[in-house]
Amino acid sequence: MFPKNAWYVACSSDEVTDAPLGRTICNERLVIYRDGSGSAVALEDFCPHRGAPLSLGRVVDGKLVCGYHGLEMGCDGKTVAMPGQRVRGFPPIRKFPLIERYGFVWIWPGQASEADASKLHHLEWAESPDWAYGGGLYHIQCDYRLMIDNLMDLTHETYVHASSIGQKEIDETPTQTRVEGDEVITSRFMEKVSAPPFWRMALRGNGLADDVPVDRWQICRFTPPSHVMIEVGVAHAGKGGYEADPAHKVSSIVVDFITPETDTSIWYFWGMARNFKPGDAELTATIREGQGKIFGEDLEMLERQQRNLLAHPSRSLLKLNIDAGGVQSRRVIERLIAQEEPASVAAAGA
Amino acid sequence: MFPKNAWYVACSSDEVTDAPLGRTICNERLVIYRDGSGSAVALEDFCPHRGAPLSLGRVVDGKLVCGYHGLEMGCDGKTVAMPGQRVRGFPPIRKFPLIERYGFVWIWPGQASEADASKLHHLEWAESPDWAYGGGLYHIQCDYRLMIDNLMDLTHETYVHASSIGQKEIDETPTQTRVEGDEVITSRFMEKVSAPPFWRMALRGNGLADDVPVDRWQICRFTPPSHVMIEVGVAHAGKGGYEADPAHKVSSIVVDFITPETDTSIWYFWGMARNFKPGDAELTATIREGQGKIFGEDLEMLERQQRNLLAHPSRSLLKLNIDAGGVQSRRVIERLIAQEEPASVAAAGA
Amino acid sequence: MFPKNAWYVACSSDEVTDAPLGRTICNERLVIYRDGSGSAVALEDFCPHRGAPLSLGRVVDGKLVCGYHGLEMGCDGKTVAMPGQRVRGFPPIRKFPLIERYGFVWIWPGQASEADASKLHHLEWAESPDWAYGGGLYHIQCDYRLMIDNLMDLTHETYVHASSIGQKEIDETPTQTRVEGDEVITSRFMEKVSAPPFWRMALRGNGLADDVPVDRWQICRFTPPSHVMIEVGVAHAGKGGYEADPAHKVSSIVVDFITPETDTSIWYFWGMARNFKPGDAELTATIREGQGKIFGEDLEMLERQQRNLLAHPSRSLLKLNIDAGGVQSRRVIERLIAQEEPASVAAAGA
Repeated sequence: MFPKNAWYVACSSDEVTDAPLGRTICNERLVIYRDGSGSAVALEDFCPHRGAPLSLGRVVDGKLVCGYHGLEMGCDGKTVAMPGQRVRGFPPIRKFPLIERYGFVWIWPGQASEADASKLHHLEWAESPDWAYGGGLYHIQCDYRLMIDNLMDLTHETYVHASSIGQKEIDETPTQTRVEGDEVITSRFMEKVSAPPFWRMALRGNGLADDVPVDRWQICRFTPPSHVMIEVGVAHAGKGGYEADPAHKVSSIVVDFITPETDTSIWYFWGMARNFKPGDAELTATIREGQGKIFGEDLEMLERQQRNLLAHPSRSLLKLNIDAGGVQSRRVIERLIAQEEPASVAAAGA
Repeated sequence: MFPKNAWYVACSSDEVTDAPLGRTICNERLVIYRDGSGSAVALEDFCPHRGAPLSLGRVVDGKLVCGYHGLEMGCDGKTVAMPGQRVRGFPPIRKFPLIERYGFVWIWPGQASEADASKLHHLEWAESPDWAYGGGLYHIQCDYRLMIDNLMDLTHETYVHASSIGQKEIDETPTQTRVEGDEVITSRFMEKVSAPPFWRMALRGNGLADDVPVDRWQICRFTPPSHVMIEVGVAHAGKGGYEADPAHKVSSIVVDFITPETDTSIWYFWGMARNFKPGDAELTATIREGQGKIFGEDLEMLERQQRNLLAHPSRSLLKLNIDAGGVQSRRVIERLIAQEEPASVAAAGA
Repeated sequence: MFPKNAWYVACSSDEVTDAPLGRTICNERLVIYRDGSGSAVALEDFCPHRGAPLSLGRVVDGKLVCGYHGLEMGCDGKTVAMPGQRVRGFPPIRKFPLIERYGFVWIWPGQASEADASKLHHLEWAESPDWAYGGGLYHIQCDYRLMIDNLMDLTHETYVHASSIGQKEIDETPTQTRVEGDEVITSRFMEKVSAPPFWRMALRGNGLADDVPVDRWQICRFTPPSHVMIEVGVAHAGKGGYEADPAHKVSSIVVDFITPETDTSIWYFWGMARNFKPGDAELTATIREGQGKIFGEDLEMLERQQRNLLAHPSRSLLKLNIDAGGVQSRRVIERLIAQEEPASVAAAGA
């Protein structure tokens, strides 16, 4: 269960080329490619002739050509031509609303008539030259909500990521959770702690001492349908913490776009945006490698948690204070799904 | 859905040895072996004692001995002996009507009482010394009818086999389809075209110039239950095309025996029979290797087409003029299945 | 279908360490570990917080700590602590009755209130210094009853294990089966036969001539829920057979603890206990290696038998005299399951 009238990341801009990309999101099989003008296009991955996947075809002169019998598909989902055929009566295939922005391709898997570009949130870090971004993609066999829970409750860092970003003080410091419209924010501020290894690396990367006490913060923001961005950072202790002058801190935004593939699998786009030394490509690579390793530690836990939950479908889980971020995020999601349902029913009846 | 009262290729003669072969065809699990006289035998792959697969056993003195507890199965499906047992009351297992001919083992998976050897078509190329044959076997996860469609519409060669046998003129030249009883014939004749790489190789193999315009033909013949044989060839242009004197052409028959394994998987026996240089074993090997590579290009397309169709069960596909061969073949198949049904019902009630 | 109120081997003692072990037995997912006192503990492998598998956690100071968010589970299935939480209201998880004895961990997957240590049979060979034991574990995709059948009818040795312990005389010598309470005993005594390779190795290992006629015996004992122990041995012919003086024979007990994992898969603990040269570790290793190889020969047969039976659910199998041991064992099992059912119904209604 996921909202369908929402913008999801289907792929990074890099993944969209002349070679069509087949990818399932929200249970819809898509083919994504660049047309003649270089614009990204997302269609159903289904040739109206005989059902072949168009993603096995090629883009020729900006048109998607089916790799089976040469049907030429237009970027509106209507067949343009086919050798030896009149194509006017061919049934169209679905074209999915698409926005390419911030280095990603955003897809609206629900009703096209409801697609609203203004609902795509602004991402300052993705457009400003003061920021650098690096990230990657994991395919994980779990319900997308388990990943939201994971990211809205960072106490797991102490256990899952003990050797990199975990530290005992995360557990010991309570969080505060608030809901602002459809946004859920869970914050934790730690004072005078040792920086764990990942942050010591980041301090050094920004030319700061790594062996002094720091103030550390984590501000997790859920926004629908399934994005979690987390402001994280450390400042030399007593310099103002989150509010400290840039000369005394390193901070960044952990970026998590969680796109359901099916009901129990996801495409997990993870990354980190930072506003220090944005031009240092080597630092970007170092951080990306470190983050990729850390975030890879969650995979087995989430996949085995999913299997456990499927084996015990009737068991209800605890909702502790630390779970407030995930619990509130799920409430937002449920409200959005409920809002869609009449539209879906109407559509089904049409 | 497939006719069961029909002859299907279960394996090549080479595959039948003293070591029993287990193979599922038309949803029936078979064990195939040679008995004491060297005759191929096909039985249910199920020991009446404890259900072990007989294909894990051995042939000893011409009798199939179960590899679990030594039951000796006769070639009529009746237990011959078992150490320390009286076997008279043992339930028989099914024996499948079988004809070994043309280098293949043909099985009748339906009602044995309906098996009719005269329904096995004559294959001139398989018996005459003027012809040579080479071929292979692919296991593919698709409905057998998708492979029939594939072979009865060769416009796909232009796209799937672009570097070997495809050429633009295939698309541009219309086909003619006619039905003769249970046989469906789709023909295409191209004039004054360049020979594509595979045919240039074949022209050279027959000692003919490969750099001159040729006339090319493709005559696809479907015969029930699921066999497609295609007369293909090229002649130096203006020498009479299909009717040209053998001195000016190379021609062959593409042989396709498509045996359903389950509802969505097949054993695909492919090969080529030629009537030039039949004694040239090296040429046979060269052609076989080239054909194997070309026919391997269809696998991913067919398997992914199948998955797409399973994901969209209610969607109907187009039936264009180029699809006429497949459409007519499916009509023949449906008619045969419909004819069988009363017999099946009667059998079930018996 | 298996009795749940019974003692099953879940793992060997060696497998239980500070690193929690996740294992499913009788469709229950367990986590097994050693607590602070070194005692083995078996709990549900399900963290009451968010359903993570506790087997991904660690044992710290004798307490099982969930690897996701640090919940500390006590060995009684009640949460001891969790960082920043009051845990008094946390729902307990199931603790499974457990006995560690004879080098194995025995679990009672049924109702804890019914657990009865006196129902765990005494195993003389596991406690006496006169005996040595070596064994291993196989994971097999079959109903546990197929393995019981296998072990209660050793005629299969002639076919499945032809090169090691099989010999024609097994087939030719009838067995006797008797039921004593819940125990089923099938015996076979062969006189003046050649020792097959495994037994020649054992004779040499005990310093006895291996090239003289021997008397050989096999006494298979089934005890509930699914244990089969087989007294096997050979004595120089004419020295009294099974009753011969130890100076003239080699004998041992084949040990088979067959634990259902699911309805169609098992954990198969196999081994051999011998009462000659118990201190000879090299001999133990040699026998273990030979037995492991021999017992591995059954795997493909059992897994493919299982698949055949699933494909033919309505077909009934033969029950021959050689099958009497398995048939009687299944009767005992069915009786025990039937006895449980009222208790299960009561439990479900509670």
